[in-house]
Amino acid sequence: MIIVFKKDATDAEKHHVYEKIEELGLRHQSIIGEELTVVGVIGREDVIRTLPLEAMPGVDYAMPILKPFKLASVELKKRTVIDVDGVKIGGDEVVIMAGPCSVEGRDMLMEIAESVNRSGAKVLRGGAFKPRTSPYSFQGYGKEALEYLAEARRRTGLKIVTEVMEPNDVELIEEYADIIQVGARNMQNYRLLNRVGKSSKPVLLKRGFAATVKELLMCAEYILSNGNMNVILCERGIRTFENGTRNTLDLCAVPAIKHLSHLPVIVDPSHGTGKREYVAAMSKAAVAAGADGLIIEVHNCPEKALSDGEQSLEPDQFDVLVRELRPIANAVGRRI
Amino acid sequence: MIIVFKKDATDAEKHHVYEKIEELGLRHQSIIGEELTVVGVIGREDVIRTLPLEAMPGVDYAMPILKPFKLASVELKKRTVIDVDGVKIGGDEVVIMAGPCSVEGRDMLMEIAESVNRSGAKVLRGGAFKPRTSPYSFQGYGKEALEYLAEARRRTGLKIVTEVMEPNDVELIEEYADIIQVGARNMQNYRLLNRVGKSSKPVLLKRGFAATVKELLMCAEYILSNGNMNVILCERGIRTFENGTRNTLDLCAVPAIKHLSHLPVIVDPSHGTGKREYVAAMSKAAVAAGADGLIIEVHNCPEKALSDGEQSLEPDQFDVLVRELRPIANAVGRRI
Amino acid sequence: MIIVFKKDATDAEKHHVYEKIEELGLRHQSIIGEELTVVGVIGREDVIRTLPLEAMPGVDYAMPILKPFKLASVELKKRTVIDVDGVKIGGDEVVIMAGPCSVEGRDMLMEIAESVNRSGAKVLRGGAFKPRTSPYSFQGYGKEALEYLAEARRRTGLKIVTEVMEPNDVELIEEYADIIQVGARNMQNYRLLNRVGKSSKPVLLKRGFAATVKELLMCAEYILSNGNMNVILCERGIRTFENGTRNTLDLCAVPAIKHLSHLPVIVDPSHGTGKREYVAAMSKAAVAAGADGLIIEVHNCPEKALSDGEQSLEPDQFDVLVRELRPIANAVGRRI
Amino acid sequence: MIIVFKKDATDAEKHHVYEKIEELGLRHQSIIGEELTVVGVIGREDVIRTLPLEAMPGVDYAMPILKPFKLASVELKKRTVIDVDGVKIGGDEVVIMAGPCSVEGRDMLMEIAESVNRSGAKVLRGGAFKPRTSPYSFQGYGKEALEYLAEARRRTGLKIVTEVMEPNDVELIEEYADIIQVGARNMQNYRLLNRVGKSSKPVLLKRGFAATVKELLMCAEYILSNGNMNVILCERGIRTFENGTRNTLDLCAVPAIKHLSHLPVIVDPSHGTGKREYVAAMSKAAVAAGADGLIIEVHNCPEKALSDGEQSLEPDQFDVLVRELRPIANAVGRRI
Repeated sequence: MIIVFKKDATDAEKHHVYEKIEELGLRHQSIIGEELTVVGVIGREDVIRTLPLEAMPGVDYAMPILKPFKLASVELKKRTVIDVDGVKIGGDEVVIMAGPCSVEGRDMLMEIAESVNRSGAKVLRGGAFKPRTSPYSFQGYGKEALEYLAEARRRTGLKIVTEVMEPNDVELIEEYADIIQVGARNMQNYRLLNRVGKSSKPVLLKRGFAATVKELLMCAEYILSNGNMNVILCERGIRTFENGTRNTLDLCAVPAIKHLSHLPVIVDPSHGTGKREYVAAMSKAAVAAGADGLIIEVHNCPEKALSDGEQSLEPDQFDVLVRELRPIANAVGRRI
Repeated sequence: MIIVFKKDATDAEKHHVYEKIEELGLRHQSIIGEELTVVGVIGREDVIRTLPLEAMPGVDYAMPILKPFKLASVELKKRTVIDVDGVKIGGDEVVIMAGPCSVEGRDMLMEIAESVNRSGAKVLRGGAFKPRTSPYSFQGYGKEALEYLAEARRRTGLKIVTEVMEPNDVELIEEYADIIQVGARNMQNYRLLNRVGKSSKPVLLKRGFAATVKELLMCAEYILSNGNMNVILCERGIRTFENGTRNTLDLCAVPAIKHLSHLPVIVDPSHGTGKREYVAAMSKAAVAAGADGLIIEVHNCPEKALSDGEQSLEPDQFDVLVRELRPIANAVGRRI
Repeated sequence: MIIVFKKDATDAEKHHVYEKIEELGLRHQSIIGEELTVVGVIGREDVIRTLPLEAMPGVDYAMPILKPFKLASVELKKRTVIDVDGVKIGGDEVVIMAGPCSVEGRDMLMEIAESVNRSGAKVLRGGAFKPRTSPYSFQGYGKEALEYLAEARRRTGLKIVTEVMEPNDVELIEEYADIIQVGARNMQNYRLLNRVGKSSKPVLLKRGFAATVKELLMCAEYILSNGNMNVILCERGIRTFENGTRNTLDLCAVPAIKHLSHLPVIVDPSHGTGKREYVAAMSKAAVAAGADGLIIEVHNCPEKALSDGEQSLEPDQFDVLVRELRPIANAVGRRI
Repeated sequence: MIIVFKKDATDAEKHHVYEKIEELGLRHQSIIGEELTVVGVIGREDVIRTLPLEAMPGVDYAMPILKPFKLASVELKKRTVIDVDGVKIGGDEVVIMAGPCSVEGRDMLMEIAESVNRSGAKVLRGGAFKPRTSPYSFQGYGKEALEYLAEARRRTGLKIVTEVMEPNDVELIEEYADIIQVGARNMQNYRLLNRVGKSSKPVLLKRGFAATVKELLMCAEYILSNGNMNVILCERGIRTFENGTRNTLDLCAVPAIKHLSHLPVIVDPSHGTGKREYVAAMSKAAVAAGADGLIIEVHNCPEKALSDGEQSLEPDQFDVLVRELRPIANAVGRRI
């Protein structure tokens, strides 16, 4: 931690700060510049962070030096490869996850599952519990949908990823899902993070649409610090002033996460753009940028979809896309 | 709903859309322009919203005409005044809520409560359960803190507002609090909204830091549609590129909410700025803009605060502020 | 400047950095922490800023300590009051500037000028040269409009503020205007800033809609460093994801600028909201927040306005507003 | 244009609007819904846009239907390929532009030019006039730098792109440059757009960091409407709350521009990320997303760069990058 004193800070004010630092068992060292005095605090940064330094008289501001996440940090470990019952996320393969936004029925799910499986997907996505902006919108079929997902797994071998919305539901979702998804709106639902941190299943943590990459890593830290080391991060677009797309897909989050963390990162080009016509270009870009996987909405009849039809690919479009993605994966030393 | 066809939409594509509209029991009327055909759908907009129109061939885009919220709308009712056991929110009085970010102990809470009560606050704020960015930060004293809040109410007569973080905790919080707060990070935690919507206590719903005013009203709609008509909205700053303040306080949300809704709206200048030195100016501005109340962090020793010390006023500063706010309230026909 | 080395920085890399600092005639002092080495550079920060420190091997990142603006800084001077031929901006009076977005004709301008003068405005605004998003929109009447503005000044005594769009036009505008406006889109048009910095007329510098407060102050620094010390800053809304208003008026810029700089700051609630129905509330809030003035669009027939009719007040609405603002100005120790 | 009346709009108010539409020689057609009346205006949208409809009594809001740009629109033309003296931008080849941020001297420029030429660049970038945030920073070597650029062209055959900052400089820049660059800060400097619109040289128009894709296209329209049909658009990052990168590179702008316009679009990963370590990943992503070119900062000694050293690649890194980009270009049916 670096503390910058105000120009007119008195000696008494400075000594008061030094005392507080010493009370915590930490050391400090001053740099007396021409205009300002700056103090470096030596010792555990998580300890000094408990002091509201900027509330102290004479202090202009305080700047943390160390990253606030430890278990998620690349300094702990170079790379994590997560083994989802044989499907490895974070390794050489770019893993494709695909399926409908919500599970809307048994037949549609089986048809989509078989189709995306043939095209090369390894994981089936599908919402059983849906967070919806309007209380009057379709909210998901719940447990019935989970049963269909399990049936689709038996028929195709696809692994299952589905969203959990509150701590109470984790036990139910764990029974059915291979990967538990925490959605963007719940990225900072700390109770939920603590609960999935105690699960034995890998967690797919989506970036909140107003969260920085570092905040996403702090939320991963919640899960990791509860003992679950299998966290997959997901970039799915952030909110900006640009209104021609539903969100602004921040693909630079991919190399940024790789630079800061050992955790695998995938990209959701469907929510990230909100428009079917941009999904292919952004999927290709994500693979070229180094993403460890993609999660793509596919619907056999988008115009009948109960949610997000506008951004869903049809099975044929998805099939073409996966074929187009393969040479790009090869060009960056990966495979699909 | 207005549907705009692509320039090259075929008759077959248009007829397909008309059929879908008719299947829902709705009518439609076309406007044939020089370049484009536009269709207005007549009838319940919530019904037509269930169709993913933009996923249909030939459709360029679709624009909703009606507002998606009904119970929160000013068209339902002019103004709501919420009676919190004698303290009226949304009426002539600008209601001041004040207290520490978190309840850090019995003595500190009693001291702060008595002080803010003397200065003119009507409601005591204080966190028992705290959402924190880092899993390594202080997370609140839980039930013990609730007991202290109840004791402070007995001693001062102040009403209590405190945050709830998950549906399971609502029952406990209801026992102690006069107003249940849903925090910014949980604004779109729909399970929690449904649960507090079944509570008999008024709800203080804070705007998510990446939520538009309309999305805040949609979240209020979740609560209202569950039967709880006592919702107080709170502007607390949104996230923008400006990094000189913790958030950008969007004070225009106050007249915007008054324009769209009958619900009372208060302002949180402490989180809205993140800096103690800007709290007074933004409190005054909020009252002048027509806010129905303020919620302000006050700590008897900000430099010892376990959270948000940087943005807390000291009791003396708070006392001066309330005195300065009174003539502004009078100038806009209100009182404190 | 504080330099943070990477954990694995070698001694050779560190020494290379030290050498570069010494070559500039500056001193440095290290703080050796448990995990990291941090170096403080002692001496002129503008000199050390010329080194691309983050490009040097072994350097993780560099953090400036001192503010990059000097002449605009509150450390230079407490408060600047600008005397515009008798109208003092930055003093006790909250100065009201009002008028049409563009000068659309002689009669309309005289009518509006006389009306806003009667209501209490001290400065007349009106565009002669208009920056417009579309090349097909009205671009202003140019010199003819300037003549009308001068005539309005003769008839009413109002001072004139009007926008300049490029260096070549400054000489012409100077002849007619009492205050030269640099618009938001040109805030970082450095050639223009240099040119108006050589003018003898005060400059009204509007904040770019994607500029931070500090960047606004850096642009003021361009003008000040050319010798023109009479710069009035203007908050006029920033661009965010909120789409219910044209911009998000960042009123906290008012106390933030007062905290950092001696320059006066005014607020433009017309562009800041883009909606006539929110102008009154935001004007009141601006005065309560400590603004030194307001610049408000007034049109005698908004529905005929060639630009920005949606956000213009009618003369009667403006008259009511000024009367409502007076007690608020008094409540914060100012007058209108 | 679609006009939505308020629920309580009177017949007189509606008729007033109809009259105004008819006065412009346009037709209108109403759709009477259950709750609202909506009116479609038939005829030239640029004409109806001159009416400030939302300022008229009884009007709730007005929604444009047609795109505001015509010459930039994909409806005018499918694709534009710009021939820069033999180098074709917008065709099969992904054109690489590279060079230093600013021209800092003759030797450095020749060395970099020869190096990037060998690696496969076709265009040399280099600033002669630099827009800088601080008035105290290096502002470019001006005409001398232009001479060096011309010499580098003679020696290597590379085409030259360099930035123009004001209308007066266009004539000088035209003499030396093959492509005239309008920088992000000047995207809405309409005088400059008009002037380069009269030039015979192609224009590289960079997206403002707070501009939407549609606003970028409107600025291109300014140039096109002055007769210069050779406009190359450039995505270079937008400003968001994410502070881990200098800007947020909005790669979805590439397919979005291709969807809306016939103009070629290139990507600047150096400014778009601000960090050398993310340039390679974002360059690859841009090519995969369909960009027609890249503009990359290369410096032979980044730590001595007078501007933007942090984001510059060294010649060797650039050479490796171009080699890695080739298979990606091939994978999307292009070549480098």
